[in-house]
Amino acid sequence: MSSSVLCFGELLLRLGAPSQQLLLQTPSLDVHVGGAEANVGVALACLGHDVAMAGVVADNALGSAALGELRRHGVDTRHVRRSAGRMGLYFMTAGAGLRPGEVVYDRAESAFAAAPADSYEWPTLLRGAQWLHLSGISPALGPQAAQATLAAARAACDMGIKVSFDGNFRPRLWERWGGDAQAILRDLFACAHIVFADHRDIGVVLGGEFSQGDAQARVDAAAAMAFAAFPQLQYMACTQRTTHNASRHALGAMLLGRDGTRALASVRELDGIVDRIGGGDAFAAGVLHGLMEGFDSATTIRFGLAAGCLKHSIPGDFCPVGVADVMALMDEETFDVRR
Amino acid sequence: MSSSVLCFGELLLRLGAPSQQLLLQTPSLDVHVGGAEANVGVALACLGHDVAMAGVVADNALGSAALGELRRHGVDTRHVRRSAGRMGLYFMTAGAGLRPGEVVYDRAESAFAAAPADSYEWPTLLRGAQWLHLSGISPALGPQAAQATLAAARAACDMGIKVSFDGNFRPRLWERWGGDAQAILRDLFACAHIVFADHRDIGVVLGGEFSQGDAQARVDAAAAMAFAAFPQLQYMACTQRTTHNASRHALGAMLLGRDGTRALASVRELDGIVDRIGGGDAFAAGVLHGLMEGFDSATTIRFGLAAGCLKHSIPGDFCPVGVADVMALMDEETFDVRR
Amino acid sequence: MSSSVLCFGELLLRLGAPSQQLLLQTPSLDVHVGGAEANVGVALACLGHDVAMAGVVADNALGSAALGELRRHGVDTRHVRRSAGRMGLYFMTAGAGLRPGEVVYDRAESAFAAAPADSYEWPTLLRGAQWLHLSGISPALGPQAAQATLAAARAACDMGIKVSFDGNFRPRLWERWGGDAQAILRDLFACAHIVFADHRDIGVVLGGEFSQGDAQARVDAAAAMAFAAFPQLQYMACTQRTTHNASRHALGAMLLGRDGTRALASVRELDGIVDRIGGGDAFAAGVLHGLMEGFDSATTIRFGLAAGCLKHSIPGDFCPVGVADVMALMDEETFDVRR
Amino acid sequence: MSSSVLCFGELLLRLGAPSQQLLLQTPSLDVHVGGAEANVGVALACLGHDVAMAGVVADNALGSAALGELRRHGVDTRHVRRSAGRMGLYFMTAGAGLRPGEVVYDRAESAFAAAPADSYEWPTLLRGAQWLHLSGISPALGPQAAQATLAAARAACDMGIKVSFDGNFRPRLWERWGGDAQAILRDLFACAHIVFADHRDIGVVLGGEFSQGDAQARVDAAAAMAFAAFPQLQYMACTQRTTHNASRHALGAMLLGRDGTRALASVRELDGIVDRIGGGDAFAAGVLHGLMEGFDSATTIRFGLAAGCLKHSIPGDFCPVGVADVMALMDEETFDVRR
Amino acid sequence: MSSSVLCFGELLLRLGAPSQQLLLQTPSLDVHVGGAEANVGVALACLGHDVAMAGVVADNALGSAALGELRRHGVDTRHVRRSAGRMGLYFMTAGAGLRPGEVVYDRAESAFAAAPADSYEWPTLLRGAQWLHLSGISPALGPQAAQATLAAARAACDMGIKVSFDGNFRPRLWERWGGDAQAILRDLFACAHIVFADHRDIGVVLGGEFSQGDAQARVDAAAAMAFAAFPQLQYMACTQRTTHNASRHALGAMLLGRDGTRALASVRELDGIVDRIGGGDAFAAGVLHGLMEGFDSATTIRFGLAAGCLKHSIPGDFCPVGVADVMALMDEETFDVRR
Amino acid sequence: MSSSVLCFGELLLRLGAPSQQLLLQTPSLDVHVGGAEANVGVALACLGHDVAMAGVVADNALGSAALGELRRHGVDTRHVRRSAGRMGLYFMTAGAGLRPGEVVYDRAESAFAAAPADSYEWPTLLRGAQWLHLSGISPALGPQAAQATLAAARAACDMGIKVSFDGNFRPRLWERWGGDAQAILRDLFACAHIVFADHRDIGVVLGGEFSQGDAQARVDAAAAMAFAAFPQLQYMACTQRTTHNASRHALGAMLLGRDGTRALASVRELDGIVDRIGGGDAFAAGVLHGLMEGFDSATTIRFGLAAGCLKHSIPGDFCPVGVADVMALMDEETFDVRR
Repeated sequence: MSSSVLCFGELLLRLGAPSQQLLLQTPSLDVHVGGAEANVGVALACLGHDVAMAGVVADNALGSAALGELRRHGVDTRHVRRSAGRMGLYFMTAGAGLRPGEVVYDRAESAFAAAPADSYEWPTLLRGAQWLHLSGISPALGPQAAQATLAAARAACDMGIKVSFDGNFRPRLWERWGGDAQAILRDLFACAHIVFADHRDIGVVLGGEFSQGDAQARVDAAAAMAFAAFPQLQYMACTQRTTHNASRHALGAMLLGRDGTRALASVRELDGIVDRIGGGDAFAAGVLHGLMEGFDSATTIRFGLAAGCLKHSIPGDFCPVGVADVMALMDEETFDVRR
Repeated sequence: MSSSVLCFGELLLRLGAPSQQLLLQTPSLDVHVGGAEANVGVALACLGHDVAMAGVVADNALGSAALGELRRHGVDTRHVRRSAGRMGLYFMTAGAGLRPGEVVYDRAESAFAAAPADSYEWPTLLRGAQWLHLSGISPALGPQAAQATLAAARAACDMGIKVSFDGNFRPRLWERWGGDAQAILRDLFACAHIVFADHRDIGVVLGGEFSQGDAQARVDAAAAMAFAAFPQLQYMACTQRTTHNASRHALGAMLLGRDGTRALASVRELDGIVDRIGGGDAFAAGVLHGLMEGFDSATTIRFGLAAGCLKHSIPGDFCPVGVADVMALMDEETFDVRR
Repeated sequence: MSSSVLCFGELLLRLGAPSQQLLLQTPSLDVHVGGAEANVGVALACLGHDVAMAGVVADNALGSAALGELRRHGVDTRHVRRSAGRMGLYFMTAGAGLRPGEVVYDRAESAFAAAPADSYEWPTLLRGAQWLHLSGISPALGPQAAQATLAAARAACDMGIKVSFDGNFRPRLWERWGGDAQAILRDLFACAHIVFADHRDIGVVLGGEFSQGDAQARVDAAAAMAFAAFPQLQYMACTQRTTHNASRHALGAMLLGRDGTRALASVRELDGIVDRIGGGDAFAAGVLHGLMEGFDSATTIRFGLAAGCLKHSIPGDFCPVGVADVMALMDEETFDVRR
Repeated sequence: MSSSVLCFGELLLRLGAPSQQLLLQTPSLDVHVGGAEANVGVALACLGHDVAMAGVVADNALGSAALGELRRHGVDTRHVRRSAGRMGLYFMTAGAGLRPGEVVYDRAESAFAAAPADSYEWPTLLRGAQWLHLSGISPALGPQAAQATLAAARAACDMGIKVSFDGNFRPRLWERWGGDAQAILRDLFACAHIVFADHRDIGVVLGGEFSQGDAQARVDAAAAMAFAAFPQLQYMACTQRTTHNASRHALGAMLLGRDGTRALASVRELDGIVDRIGGGDAFAAGVLHGLMEGFDSATTIRFGLAAGCLKHSIPGDFCPVGVADVMALMDEETFDVRR
Repeated sequence: MSSSVLCFGELLLRLGAPSQQLLLQTPSLDVHVGGAEANVGVALACLGHDVAMAGVVADNALGSAALGELRRHGVDTRHVRRSAGRMGLYFMTAGAGLRPGEVVYDRAESAFAAAPADSYEWPTLLRGAQWLHLSGISPALGPQAAQATLAAARAACDMGIKVSFDGNFRPRLWERWGGDAQAILRDLFACAHIVFADHRDIGVVLGGEFSQGDAQARVDAAAAMAFAAFPQLQYMACTQRTTHNASRHALGAMLLGRDGTRALASVRELDGIVDRIGGGDAFAAGVLHGLMEGFDSATTIRFGLAAGCLKHSIPGDFCPVGVADVMALMDEETFDVRR
Repeated sequence: MSSSVLCFGELLLRLGAPSQQLLLQTPSLDVHVGGAEANVGVALACLGHDVAMAGVVADNALGSAALGELRRHGVDTRHVRRSAGRMGLYFMTAGAGLRPGEVVYDRAESAFAAAPADSYEWPTLLRGAQWLHLSGISPALGPQAAQATLAAARAACDMGIKVSFDGNFRPRLWERWGGDAQAILRDLFACAHIVFADHRDIGVVLGGEFSQGDAQARVDAAAAMAFAAFPQLQYMACTQRTTHNASRHALGAMLLGRDGTRALASVRELDGIVDRIGGGDAFAAGVLHGLMEGFDSATTIRFGLAAGCLKHSIPGDFCPVGVADVMALMDEETFDVRR
């Protein structure tokens, strides 16, 4: 019952300090391929779905390497174009103890951000797909990327393909080119079947403030407003994270349905975090898997949270785990070595 | 007052993903030498005993490397034969956080498993030994290995050498060749001076179920049945493990004597586990050291538990720590850097 | 004008000592994926062809990793089955100076070798292919693999698909199961459009000895006999290697056609060899590329030799170079850093 | 408002087992440059002060490397002399879980320890400095180093330069050459504007025992005695450490003023400690920064503790963090990745 | 007799594939700091001169790391400004055997290239300097950088400071912004005391073609034209390189004086090249050292060539060798390990 | 026909820069165990002899590691004492191309050098031995070590045990303590059955100069004088080395007998040298193996040279190769990978 999914977004190379070092404390960098949408794509492919990527990479060895990593995890890269330009990069220092991790972005002027909005033939790219996955990062990268993202979402709507949209609001990116985040994101939310967003994202898009009650009450209020504003929207999902220190977090999650269903996955303690990047993307992939497979809401959100938690134990941006691994964590038997 | 010990069993090479990566996430593997009986042997050698290994390794560079590692830790390898064939391997992904570690075995058809039962001249091999250490893994590897293990145990009995037997019940190995685990293990238990086993092992060997009361009550009941069934048996020891997550466990231990002595070592929290493999073997070595040195039961089980706990902080299968290090942990002064 | 190629054969994991160390001199192994036919497949994919792999891998993390590496280089792995069993391995120490490299094979009883001959539906697998690439290693692995290789070759012949066959005669593998190498290889040669073989291979298959004249004369004589014996055979190609020491070789090559064409690529000195494994496979891929692209014989053999030479400068079994890189070496301008 | 600081002391090379291995478990060592006074110097330079080092290093590649590392972090090394002899070394195994870290010193007969007391022209070296930082390690290294340290302290006093003195009492070093620790340290304390010391250090220097009341009471009593004995002394600061296990400590701190001010920084839990060495030096640098910048006592001790805590998350002896990083931890917002 | 030198240019980070791998063949990159002018500066500092760097780096951890590396090698970095923006990067695959090395530049839009020409107060920066070192790369980076380079050269001329200029003609950089390379370079050559250039560079600047005679004759002719065109020019120096393969080159060098002196350093075979990048910069530094120290031309060019040759044996862009090491190679005694 | 050999000398730890880096260019060191006599011992053990080591190591983790490495290679370490003190170290930068390797010794005041001459009970240590191997390094380390070496040699003579002595003249070590090298070495030569020495060593010991004729003539003359001066001496062997550059040497060897036999092994080109340290020790071990096995002189010197050449291809101080590997090089078939 695997689904066919198209992910559209930028591929990035992460260049990270090894183990727990500061950036360039020793002259070596570990490389990972990532990107919010690609992360979701890889996770879905590893959960058994047919996933293809759309986008643009630099026409050099870095672009090739990024595509190779997607293919290695089973994502179809034939629709990613290669063009002159540079790959987006980010440099990362992992956190440890009371020292938070830190990202230095170097993604401006990338081949993806510079690609004209009409680079993509959406009807062709979307042919056969059941889902299109987008995030709020792509439209924040510049006017061309914003237009391309909107075109993708609209084409999908027109073709009856479900759109999954991860809010991922990044004010600093929007500020760089002065894009109207609210207007553009509202158009994207309007196409979505599911949004990964909490009350802060909804506040950005719909302008409200959600300051009453506890965290869950705020999300409930935001969801109510979102369902009212976006008739096509069926689901809203989000995680709730507490950071005790850089390597110990707690993570819970909620899935709210237009029909009033409201499923909570109870909070899990994440001890000895290996790599927190991509945790939200793995969560999104897990929730999408649940929807694709027809799980009930409670199972879906528990599956999503378990996928997101597992990601925190895996180096890199990707979450290459199978369904059985996620299920095992949902069932919580034991954490001893399996042999 | 060091003892002379012969360990018989298979040497394995562990090929493990570096640090906290998934297996082959990067194309590099860390290598460790291990094997349940060799692990006990190395630990005992580092605690000051004269230890020799018996068994068979492949007549190639891998077999040489395995023997070299034993010698490095002070174990006499002159009695290990080298024959055509392959080394047993296992591939390992260490666990992290909520992701359990995982072992992929590739040990079938090894030179050890394929060695004819009459490869070993036990009277010669056992000459001068005071103890013979065996485990339940060897007989599970196939009919030849089972016969060889039984022959070793019987020869030791005949020569008045104490037999230490670690249950290590592995149903999957037994199933592969259809061996009668119960019958063979019963014969081995019958030769043992001490068994490392809990109520589950005793259930396998003697057929009972131990479902009443708490964990300690079950072990008590099992021990009572074992002492009744095996007149030669003087001690039964086991650990009790709780796995909070892959890198945080709690470990307690019990030592029960035929004379009714019953010593408990109180539970220790194992935080930031480095390598859990070999923890049980280090525990066994610690208990054996206590018996060899004439410690009382309470000291013996505390020494055993401390050795087992230390192992969790050391990469690899071996526990190469000295008596002073174990004693220091028993006394629990401080955990600051010693300088 | 890219071609569609199916490669059938075993995937192996190479576990090699890092840099110039002896095997297990330090406890770390570098991992590469290889296999004679897969090596050809990867090289052809990197030269721009549509390549798919057929075969069987172990249904564990090692098998997944092997497939992932093929996909990373653009080879379609959907037709590789996964079954219980183990992956074939080989352990490698690279040579240096006057110390030759050394391989310790551990490939017996692999999932591939154990797969029943009827595991493969050749008409389905070969649909759409223009070429089938096989080697003499697969039939040497056991009766099932031999039968499967023959079935593949015959199905390709029946479907009008060109068969490329790399002799790769390995007496030690044949001896293990007592297969009739001569008879089986003869049947395979009979299906081939091109064979990668020299006078020694032809001697094995057709029984002759080629001891007169210099190396080229012997190859000429062997080719004449081969073209006579195998009416379907159009080309025979081989390299000629001199090993000054482990890191300096000289390599020439010949391509002989049924029509009497006889093209030589002049000898190149290979200084500072990085990795010699897969050199013959890259050569084969280069020659196949020439044939697929319709190069003349002289250009074809020069392209093949250049590809083979480049492989010696690249770590691992694969030769992931593009057409432009091979062309550049054929033109031999300069070896300074390109910037 | 940056200050000009001279640090005098020995530079050491730390040779440490990688990650969590035992020393020489694999044949590789990670190298860090350290030394109690240099650690303070590097931290102060990274906090924005003008720092110069005085001392002696070996006139070989190791000495050059040590100086290079200081320069890399912005410390002026022009006043460090190079002379024949050896560099002090220490070999280190990091602790993990219930296994404490361990240091093997190899610093005897170093070029620094062997340097004649009259090697240093203090008036020249101290010209322009506002602070001189010393520790109790230098005088413990031998009679020449003790004399040199005293000369430095006295010259600073004479020139009106504030002396900061870190007790760092090391009985084993004093015993080696039979120096009169009490007398020498008393003379050094007498020159100090601030001492980093607790009741144990004061006990050594002034001979008392501080056994009444809790830890804070003992420090209060010791401080009272110190302020009485040393009229020049304005401040005494110390940390209070609890070691739950090798990778989890708790750390609090106190700053006591001659004027009766008494500031406490509340205890912080240090989870997942990366490297505990240099924690006290980073604390000292943080406190000195507070004094130099004119912070009030409460802010000063909180800044000092935050700097000391951050050090525990950074590999190596140095604490190369900026003011903003320390401030961020004092404010404790969140520990999620900053991006 | 050390000189005081200011170097102006861009600092780059090199991100290179480890050992002899292809770029991103494994997910790790080795980092080196470089830049044509900084390379000269580091080499001169290691030869004993007082060297300061001028320029701009990104105001992030990458910029800090680049400055730290310069300081580590003794270069004064206080005059390098830090501004918002990105660091210039280049990705590198080292060559091996018949496979040439390859550089992928990612230096566009760097903080250095974007810095306004009036960022630098040349009279202040040049105060006390005896030499200013520039290269043809800076003006090729864009109009601002070109203007700044010209301003630097003119200020130095005005202040009587000798200008050393390394041609380093990079057509691809000039093309990107359409700068008039000829006009700008001519102005720079006009300020130079020495140029590192051969007949190709002179051809670019003065428009001629030098196609007659052998390589030396062409350089002679070019030099004659240069001395005629640029009255201030006293010296022209260049290397002559033959590339047998990626790891074996031959290198000769010439130094021509306005007074007609003409010194040749005889060709040296460079076997087993470790890192060819920076070879020309080390050569330039060696020649400058000769001029600064007042060596005769023959000694100067031999010193320069020896420095350039040594660089080929050292990983990274820098050539951190002392005078004694260069002298030893000039004297050519033995190449056995010095102990 | 294996022999029983005792080796007496100091064990050293080599701390070397990884691959071709300069020392501490990156903050990591590779560790090897070595020592002239231990190197011979390990080589002989790998060639099948019973080898034991005598000496003293530091009673710390470094000493344990050194002993462990010897045991790993099959050398009996039970007779090595452990005492307070430090291990001798040396820091090494490997050479490359035109840059020679370089050693920085840090071996003064080691536990071995400081051990009293009467630490060793030679009759006990030598019991059962057929050979004692010594070198000129031990007596150069100080008066105690010199006395101990002489005592060992004399005890061996008295017990009819053959003494093998490797000249290894190190003037810098002798100068440090002002020992009378000539007198002490003469006494040691007087006990030797075989010396590894050339005309320079004989010149030191017997005072002559050997300046006439070519290298072989000089060795012949020196040997004649040595056989005349030392009636017990039966053999003198030496290598002749030419260093083209740091990674390409040529090596020949001679073995001269008291009976006038004179065997030469023809010069071999050593290309791509991996590690030159220990080459002379491997040569010595090879020659000793020939004598122990009763090879004729021609075979003995060819075996010795082949062993010495193989060492140059192996990282570290040891030459852990078997008889078959040496034989294979003597026969020189091919240098292709053995598979």
